[in-house]
Amino acid sequence: MTDIPQPPEFDAAFRDRLLELFRWRRDVRSFQRTPVSDETLHGLFSLANLAPSVGLSQPWRFVRVDDPVRRAVVRASFEACNAEALAAQDQSRAALYARLKLAGLDDAPVQIAVCAVDAPEQGGGLGRLTMPETTAYSAVMAIHTIWLAARAMGLGMGWVSILDPAAVVAALDIPPAWKLVGYFCLGYPAAESLTPELERLGWERRSASGPELLRR
Amino acid sequence: MTDIPQPPEFDAAFRDRLLELFRWRRDVRSFQRTPVSDETLHGLFSLANLAPSVGLSQPWRFVRVDDPVRRAVVRASFEACNAEALAAQDQSRAALYARLKLAGLDDAPVQIAVCAVDAPEQGGGLGRLTMPETTAYSAVMAIHTIWLAARAMGLGMGWVSILDPAAVVAALDIPPAWKLVGYFCLGYPAAESLTPELERLGWERRSASGPELLRR
Repeated sequence: MTDIPQPPEFDAAFRDRLLELFRWRRDVRSFQRTPVSDETLHGLFSLANLAPSVGLSQPWRFVRVDDPVRRAVVRASFEACNAEALAAQDQSRAALYARLKLAGLDDAPVQIAVCAVDAPEQGGGLGRLTMPETTAYSAVMAIHTIWLAARAMGLGMGWVSILDPAAVVAALDIPPAWKLVGYFCLGYPAAESLTPELERLGWERRSASGPELLRR
Repeated sequence: MTDIPQPPEFDAAFRDRLLELFRWRRDVRSFQRTPVSDETLHGLFSLANLAPSVGLSQPWRFVRVDDPVRRAVVRASFEACNAEALAAQDQSRAALYARLKLAGLDDAPVQIAVCAVDAPEQGGGLGRLTMPETTAYSAVMAIHTIWLAARAMGLGMGWVSILDPAAVVAALDIPPAWKLVGYFCLGYPAAESLTPELERLGWERRSASGPELLRR
């Protein structure tokens, strides 16, 4: 029951590197076609087990999508939803929106749907009775763990949310007890930048000041 | 428009330390009463700005709770919800559940509610039209960023989800356009462990094998 190992001392040099990792993590939409080895992928996705989860339920599930037909259905859903989003833009923003590259679906060698089990048995329901959304939130923290680790391995990841979830669930034959949390492209990035692509292309600026903090 | 800085090389030594950080991050429920300086907190929470967010909307909002009356209302909500959860346990698990320490609300020097703006103006709605839950997911990634950075500073964080969100929103007078994502205790941990507390106390075991991966 006792842990022999002593906690490591995380020093200022490590914290500086961690800050660099946070700063260089990007939502990547342009990929090299270089494949990612199964071994690399396995190592990367096994890190999910170290993410926080409500009641230690580890509710994240991963669906690796390689079948070209299924990929094409996902891509078609992106195209349809993106066209709708473009049509909904103000005239002043439509041209800018149309120029954005919002997904790396054509080039990314790896595509993964991340899901959360709706009502996981593991964890005995602990912590999710009044806030069941914590199950999906646990999967999101697994995603973020993988995203950071991927960047530290020279890999890039991009989140595609411009999709019809029902269409993706059907295309991927996702088990009915799983909820789709997100769809991801993964691979070696075609370019590197400290600045988010949406900022470089003039869509939005990051707030540089501290986040809003209310006092109560 | 071009970024001068070159991406850093994250080497194997850094990746090993990052893995240690993932392994030692804990959901902390026992805190020293040592205060955390405002400067430390400001530095920590400003890292949220480096988290991924849908459409670069940065929708996370933080509510720091210091008022003893408001804290007492949150604590009462925890007590009530926890009693309900205990009552819902199978007889075989109830005694074990009753022994768990599920929140550090009595000792943690810092308590923070994290919210997400329901329909953020920033980001122009990009990416959230078909999956509006990505706004809350963005706040979850900000939480996870802060959680990891806190651990690297010797701080511990614990997520309290055994709460009635409506009661907490009312107690904290949270703006109506914000959704409560989670309530957190923060401070210097009273103990360190490589093993999650729910595992040490026999509630649940972590799966050590790779997470489930479907092929499609």
